[in-house]
Amino acid sequence: MPLSRRIERDIKSASKIRKLFEEGIRLKEIHGEMNVADLSLGNPVVEPPDGFVETVSDLIQQRTGMHRYMPNLGFPWVREAVAKTLTDEGYFKGLGAHQVMMCAGASAGINVVLKTILNPGENVIVVAPYFVEYKSYVENHGGELNTVTPAEDFSLDVKKIAEAIDHKTRAVIINSPNNPTGVVYSKENLTELADMLARKKHEEGQTIYIISDEPYREIVYDGTSFTSIANLYANSFMVYSFSKSLSIPGERIGYVAINPEMEDGSAIMGGMAVCNRILGFVNAPALMQRVIVDVGVRVDVKDYQARRDRLKKVLEESGYEFVKPQGTFYLFAKCFDGEGTFIEKAKEKLLLVVPGSSFGYRDWFRIAYCVDDNTIELACTKLRELAEASRG
Amino acid sequence: MPLSRRIERDIKSASKIRKLFEEGIRLKEIHGEMNVADLSLGNPVVEPPDGFVETVSDLIQQRTGMHRYMPNLGFPWVREAVAKTLTDEGYFKGLGAHQVMMCAGASAGINVVLKTILNPGENVIVVAPYFVEYKSYVENHGGELNTVTPAEDFSLDVKKIAEAIDHKTRAVIINSPNNPTGVVYSKENLTELADMLARKKHEEGQTIYIISDEPYREIVYDGTSFTSIANLYANSFMVYSFSKSLSIPGERIGYVAINPEMEDGSAIMGGMAVCNRILGFVNAPALMQRVIVDVGVRVDVKDYQARRDRLKKVLEESGYEFVKPQGTFYLFAKCFDGEGTFIEKAKEKLLLVVPGSSFGYRDWFRIAYCVDDNTIELACTKLRELAEASRG
Repeated sequence: MPLSRRIERDIKSASKIRKLFEEGIRLKEIHGEMNVADLSLGNPVVEPPDGFVETVSDLIQQRTGMHRYMPNLGFPWVREAVAKTLTDEGYFKGLGAHQVMMCAGASAGINVVLKTILNPGENVIVVAPYFVEYKSYVENHGGELNTVTPAEDFSLDVKKIAEAIDHKTRAVIINSPNNPTGVVYSKENLTELADMLARKKHEEGQTIYIISDEPYREIVYDGTSFTSIANLYANSFMVYSFSKSLSIPGERIGYVAINPEMEDGSAIMGGMAVCNRILGFVNAPALMQRVIVDVGVRVDVKDYQARRDRLKKVLEESGYEFVKPQGTFYLFAKCFDGEGTFIEKAKEKLLLVVPGSSFGYRDWFRIAYCVDDNTIELACTKLRELAEASRG
Repeated sequence: MPLSRRIERDIKSASKIRKLFEEGIRLKEIHGEMNVADLSLGNPVVEPPDGFVETVSDLIQQRTGMHRYMPNLGFPWVREAVAKTLTDEGYFKGLGAHQVMMCAGASAGINVVLKTILNPGENVIVVAPYFVEYKSYVENHGGELNTVTPAEDFSLDVKKIAEAIDHKTRAVIINSPNNPTGVVYSKENLTELADMLARKKHEEGQTIYIISDEPYREIVYDGTSFTSIANLYANSFMVYSFSKSLSIPGERIGYVAINPEMEDGSAIMGGMAVCNRILGFVNAPALMQRVIVDVGVRVDVKDYQARRDRLKKVLEESGYEFVKPQGTFYLFAKCFDGEGTFIEKAKEKLLLVVPGSSFGYRDWFRIAYCVDDNTIELACTKLRELAEASRG
């Protein structure tokens, strides 16, 4: 057998999404790219903000020694700048450079955190529906996923999370704004979770970390206010990526910041430096570390908002049940018919969406609306037709 | 305990090098950077070649959509260009783009390969002295390191490698030109290994992969000819990084190419695509993928050669026993006295070198001469004094 047994199995379980992607490429070849509404991928068509190109052009000319290895945690002045921004913007009180690690995107950051804290056989809680690769990340380091269902409105059901905790629970991953639902957890909801975990520590001495995965935090609508749970709970890791806010997912740049009150924070940071190296990341790409400092974050959510509003209206008018989308560029809706039938019918109409089972939540589907307006219009027509056909 | 037990242990075992680095920083603060000869790190002071800055400046202006996600294996035309170069330069016969994965440097590439092929409990053979992080890479994926001593001239002892193979052996890592010895394995030596593994397959049906780690292959001296074992053995992965050849280790860019005759090569490439994603690399940094195509590889080894010659002369004159350095920017020499005493005495003289035990080979030490000429001269004086003191 050429592949390891784990990867053989992972490839099989991932085959549903993979087949969909391959199917998409095939359908576009047959029917023309303009006629296929591919809403399957969270790959923004938006270009990086004004100033990005100029910043890269400027920085590449400046100073020698800028492409060498730097400390595994990143350039000291970049970490300093990130710490200052997070402090200025109120995410943390008095965060220092020594509490920030630059990393190659959020997926790298989460893997480094898990490798640092997780012992084989321990489990990590996620709330369904969840980003499908969390399962692989946890299993990479010998852990097990511990899945909890959400409240009816797709907020956190803290009672259920409390019930799911056992003595092998090491961390909870919180993803807000949420992929795939678009839900932004409220401050009250997050505080309830933070308090429950703090009580757990106080009463039973069990340290459970929170890993707050926040790549979409600037992509929120209708004046929704974003709260980071990393600010509410001492033993928290904030994991951030510039992939969505700067539309540069191919460049792999982000950071992990720990809550300044984290117990043994300096040992944890030392562990993360080692893990960033031995997992093979070594350091976040050097040029992009410098770029994010000079560019700053400037997301224009206007375009996303217009697309969300358009789709929301069509889903409403067509009688779909869907989650009220407060952030991200995803919509999560319920399938008419069973999931298999619905996704198949959509594909026949050249509409590509991801089945809920890929997020651990069957019979729903995810729409990614980070696509161009033509694709949105095409999708609206097809979503309407699908609803009519199901009712007819 | 905040850290996982594995990382707690890794930090302890890595502490010798780490302490040395920290000691280096401390010594430079006390005595001034000009007075400390720090030869501990393989971080080239050479700048990227002419054309690098211009290429980045040009590419950043061109085309939209260039910072988005691309397929996990890399931009198709970049993989095509790498395949063509490797074919044109005679590394492989008829290599195709579908047999190349772009990755975030060699450390990423090796981790992706190991995750793809390794089952927990299997072992990977390395030949001492070896790059210390191979151990972590193998253990990341549940494997065990299987260490073999080299021949007296630090070439491969194929008989010993054959004896070390058991039914759990899954791969052999070959690093030529070698870090830390600077040895370039001869074609005959590599053919002997390839033949032995092919016989093993033929007689016992056991597939053992070769992972050929080649970041230093352009850095060779005295007309030494480099042979890639990946060209001599079907079940081979060639892992390459532009860190050394373009002096851009901070940017994290490289590739893995499989021998076109690899069994089940297409399943392996499919597995690598999944592993690149789930390990958290996702893809090699987008901009640098494009840069390496346009810049090409242009290493000027003149400066390294001059430094090597200077150090070699001093080591010879001072009576050190050392390995004939044919490539890389490392020299591997034997300690006068035991390792602990020698490294300590060197440190007292403000000379920083890495102990051989960090490469699984005690009582020797590694010099990294990718430093400036002032540091080389300083080091020469100190190496002479150390030899005199030991004899005196």
